[in-house]
Amino acid sequence: MRKSIATVSVSGTLMEKLEAIAAAGFDGVEIFENDLLTCPLPPEEVRARAADLGLGIDLYQPFRDFEGVPAEVLAGNLRRAEHKFRLMERLGADLLLVCSNISPAAIGDDELAAGQLRLLAERAAEYGIRIAYEALAWGRHVNEYLHAWRIVRLADHPNLGTCLDSFHILSRGSDPVGIEAIPGEKIFFLQLADAPLLAMDVLQWSRHYRCFPGQGNFDLAGLVASVLRTGYAGPLSLEVFNDVFRQASTERTALDGMRSLIGLERELHGMTHPAVPAGFAFAELADTGSLGGMLGALGFARTGTHPTKPVELWEQGGARLLLNATGDDPKLIAIGLDSPDPAGAAKHAESLLSPILPRERTPEEARLEAVAAPDGTEIFFCDDAWLADFASSGPVPGQAEGPAPGQVEGAAEGPVPGPVTGIDHVALAQPWHYFDEAALFYRGVLGLRPQESLELPDPYGLLRSKAMSSPDGAVRVVVNIAQVGADHLPWQHVALACDDVMAVARRLRREHPELLLPIPGNYYDDLEARHEVDPELRRLGVLYDRDEHGEFLHVYTVTAGRVFFEIVQRIGGYQGYGAGNAPIRLAVQHAAGH
Amino acid sequence: MRKSIATVSVSGTLMEKLEAIAAAGFDGVEIFENDLLTCPLPPEEVRARAADLGLGIDLYQPFRDFEGVPAEVLAGNLRRAEHKFRLMERLGADLLLVCSNISPAAIGDDELAAGQLRLLAERAAEYGIRIAYEALAWGRHVNEYLHAWRIVRLADHPNLGTCLDSFHILSRGSDPVGIEAIPGEKIFFLQLADAPLLAMDVLQWSRHYRCFPGQGNFDLAGLVASVLRTGYAGPLSLEVFNDVFRQASTERTALDGMRSLIGLERELHGMTHPAVPAGFAFAELADTGSLGGMLGALGFARTGTHPTKPVELWEQGGARLLLNATGDDPKLIAIGLDSPDPAGAAKHAESLLSPILPRERTPEEARLEAVAAPDGTEIFFCDDAWLADFASSGPVPGQAEGPAPGQVEGAAEGPVPGPVTGIDHVALAQPWHYFDEAALFYRGVLGLRPQESLELPDPYGLLRSKAMSSPDGAVRVVVNIAQVGADHLPWQHVALACDDVMAVARRLRREHPELLLPIPGNYYDDLEARHEVDPELRRLGVLYDRDEHGEFLHVYTVTAGRVFFEIVQRIGGYQGYGAGNAPIRLAVQHAAGH
Repeated sequence: MRKSIATVSVSGTLMEKLEAIAAAGFDGVEIFENDLLTCPLPPEEVRARAADLGLGIDLYQPFRDFEGVPAEVLAGNLRRAEHKFRLMERLGADLLLVCSNISPAAIGDDELAAGQLRLLAERAAEYGIRIAYEALAWGRHVNEYLHAWRIVRLADHPNLGTCLDSFHILSRGSDPVGIEAIPGEKIFFLQLADAPLLAMDVLQWSRHYRCFPGQGNFDLAGLVASVLRTGYAGPLSLEVFNDVFRQASTERTALDGMRSLIGLERELHGMTHPAVPAGFAFAELADTGSLGGMLGALGFARTGTHPTKPVELWEQGGARLLLNATGDDPKLIAIGLDSPDPAGAAKHAESLLSPILPRERTPEEARLEAVAAPDGTEIFFCDDAWLADFASSGPVPGQAEGPAPGQVEGAAEGPVPGPVTGIDHVALAQPWHYFDEAALFYRGVLGLRPQESLELPDPYGLLRSKAMSSPDGAVRVVVNIAQVGADHLPWQHVALACDDVMAVARRLRREHPELLLPIPGNYYDDLEARHEVDPELRRLGVLYDRDEHGEFLHVYTVTAGRVFFEIVQRIGGYQGYGAGNAPIRLAVQHAAGH
Repeated sequence: MRKSIATVSVSGTLMEKLEAIAAAGFDGVEIFENDLLTCPLPPEEVRARAADLGLGIDLYQPFRDFEGVPAEVLAGNLRRAEHKFRLMERLGADLLLVCSNISPAAIGDDELAAGQLRLLAERAAEYGIRIAYEALAWGRHVNEYLHAWRIVRLADHPNLGTCLDSFHILSRGSDPVGIEAIPGEKIFFLQLADAPLLAMDVLQWSRHYRCFPGQGNFDLAGLVASVLRTGYAGPLSLEVFNDVFRQASTERTALDGMRSLIGLERELHGMTHPAVPAGFAFAELADTGSLGGMLGALGFARTGTHPTKPVELWEQGGARLLLNATGDDPKLIAIGLDSPDPAGAAKHAESLLSPILPRERTPEEARLEAVAAPDGTEIFFCDDAWLADFASSGPVPGQAEGPAPGQVEGAAEGPVPGPVTGIDHVALAQPWHYFDEAALFYRGVLGLRPQESLELPDPYGLLRSKAMSSPDGAVRVVVNIAQVGADHLPWQHVALACDDVMAVARRLRREHPELLLPIPGNYYDDLEARHEVDPELRRLGVLYDRDEHGEFLHVYTVTAGRVFFEIVQRIGGYQGYGAGNAPIRLAVQHAAGH
């Protein structure tokens, strides 16, 4: 029989995957959409490369959430489909996988679903394309393979058949003998996966995924309050089974457990955080001389130098960056936070067992309170006094670059004008052992609240990402780890807030195109299928996202050492971080050897 | 409030844990039984050490499967409990956690459970011990905290109270407000754990744990057969989402996918394995000269040397070991299997894309067919001809040790007498990326069937273990990996079958006590609580296990390089590998720096 494999099944870039799959003797592939989106080659070249390798493109997948929708949604779904049909023509694929709708908005009406799938099949037929409809095991209304087949039969169109997937059938315990009632010519495709019979139940959850209070999602203060109201006078005792803790430093884990109980007690006593930061004062980066040019290109000006340390202050709008000539490759080494009470914030951090950092300073320098985050990043609690250290300064001796265009010397002369208004967020890279510890640190010590947690595919593994924010959104931190066991750390970045990303991108494209991370055209093909967007996004390499509150425009710079910059524009009340676009970025960064 | 932590919550040995917990400022600990069992110190010294550190022992746990049992089981359960009470006296612990029965044999009768718990509390009272009864979220009949409380109230004994665990309450979505109806003095203990709200459902299973056909537990041949009966003529296509595959070598994963489909096709065509091995011909170990002495002590004799290679043959009963002076530290490098058709077995392996190993040999030497297992171990398919290579041999020049006692020179003179009868199994260490690949290799290439898969705690992480066996049990292979992400490989070992482990242990204890891995006395305290066993086991350091078929006696040697030996005796139809004792071994090995 013909043998195929979905590109998602192996690691690497799309080209590496195709080569390995061909070398292994497969006849064809299913192109998994994300692999195409992250590929720098146009579909025609992917098609040619596959053909050169002797691989047929047996399926393009997945097309989601199409059927069983209200009439007003259908038009948009058909429009999305037309985009994909044209893409498949370029790719030389004539079979599209449509998986059953998982949206809460889907309507459980077989007649409606069948009618809409028939319409889809009619459109597909004009392109010579066939549709394979598959029941996902977690489909909203259609999650059994025989149900999907009933709908296909009801739709009754030669270009519509069913796709069977062993996982979706056997994971639900469905009897595969029912398959034999389906005419073989209506089974357009068969996908195979095995799986261990995992008891993915509360026991497994308990044995491997427990964590300390404040690291997860339980309301433990509420529970303990109930216990205390009984008159209970025994101890609070931590019992945590956690695969990662088992491998981590004994001392660190014990300390973190204590920190979690101290935080829980504070919560029980109704103690609020004494000094939630009001914003970013600065971000400090180690530098060997390469970052100044990049900041100048982004519109920053060097506005001061430290009187006793090899540190420069660069500013634009409300964004302040410090470049520290440590001799290390570029990386984020410190974050300054505007604190309503720096001494109180440091004392609070100390009460949560955070290591307070000793600071060497001359009597004239501002006193800065600082603690170490779990990954070693220094966190400073600042009032405005620190800026005075940079007030009386001239050009830095031995600085390789000349002043950037529009650069002004001397700080505290009012903000440097430019489209950038401040720091939107910083993204830090954690060793994978310290992910839970970091979550507790930012929650307890800084008073940030956990937001979305995501797993993002990159070509060589999954990236875990957790966003945290102060209640008013003024301080946002994203904590990233490479997959458990990965031997590399993710990149760090500073995201700069801005009111007009398009203007920034236009200027960079014109004056410093080498600094903009190139975005694959396939990304824009997909984006344009999903949304009606300004075609200038593609020309400039600007990425786009939206949520229920608003829209998000952003560009990435290339990396320097371990960091890069992102310029972001939040339109309306957009709450996210453009995480859906991160896999595109990761693939391009890996390909560039960044 | 007093702050405690269960020792299971942090990594390391019990002493490392206590020190780190004290350093973190905790007031007390829950001693998790496994941590005590793997500790070389007697309970009195653990107690003293905890006291020196200022730590109270707030709880001893867990005591399992006690209540709601038939009368004939109760006596044994009370006997187990008396053992633990005496242990707790030595440890200075006065509170025992009893968690709700999870056994399928448990009876769902609250009156019965209450009566039996009251009996337990009466016995405990004689020792000044109190019992904290807890509902496990997956308890057979009692899995809600208010249910456990109703039983405690029914039992009505001052030495019986309840233990609340936030995970068991909140993971089930129970409302903690119900706690407030419990009198505080009847809440003997409170355990806290947080957890992420994981959708541990089919979707997560699908996204992270799929694997290739033959690597999991699905009956895919049955499903595909149903599909083919429909007349389906499309491809078989693999669609696998697997976190580990995402990080592994692209080429290897693609090849392994192809291997899985070839194996599936063979199964579909009803093709049986052409040459399932009939037994172990030999195991070959790299050696720098240290293993000969150990083998001599175990009763092996050197019976031959290879005419052209620095390889010695050592024999006892039907067990044959080759020591190869490669200059590498001791490790397993090859396995020889008795094959009914060596050429056919090699051809079969080749059809499954296994790398056939080129062999350099002189014209006189036996032809040996060999393939490479995923971890690089060489697998030889042998008939008896290979033994002739060792027939005409004398002592090995430059061999450091003299002949061991009873050593006979010259092979093929009949088996060397001794208690060891053959090789029972070999345990191989896999890099964690190749665990699924190894499972498929041993199943497809050797025709072994998967047996139990286990996760075994060692002090610094979890060890994953999978046993595979030929249908008649003549060839057994255990594949071990350290936890995903661990940077070390587990140890390998050769388990030697024997009819009288006690005799072997007696001789070793007398003549070479330094070769026996020392087993903590706490292990025997626990063993004697569970079973009535010969007290000589403790004196000799022999370990014990039983299953529904029979009993198992075994001893471990100390490690040499990356390997050690195990001498095992299967009594009755015991099917396992003594895996329940492996955590004891791992803790001792780590402590010895092996």
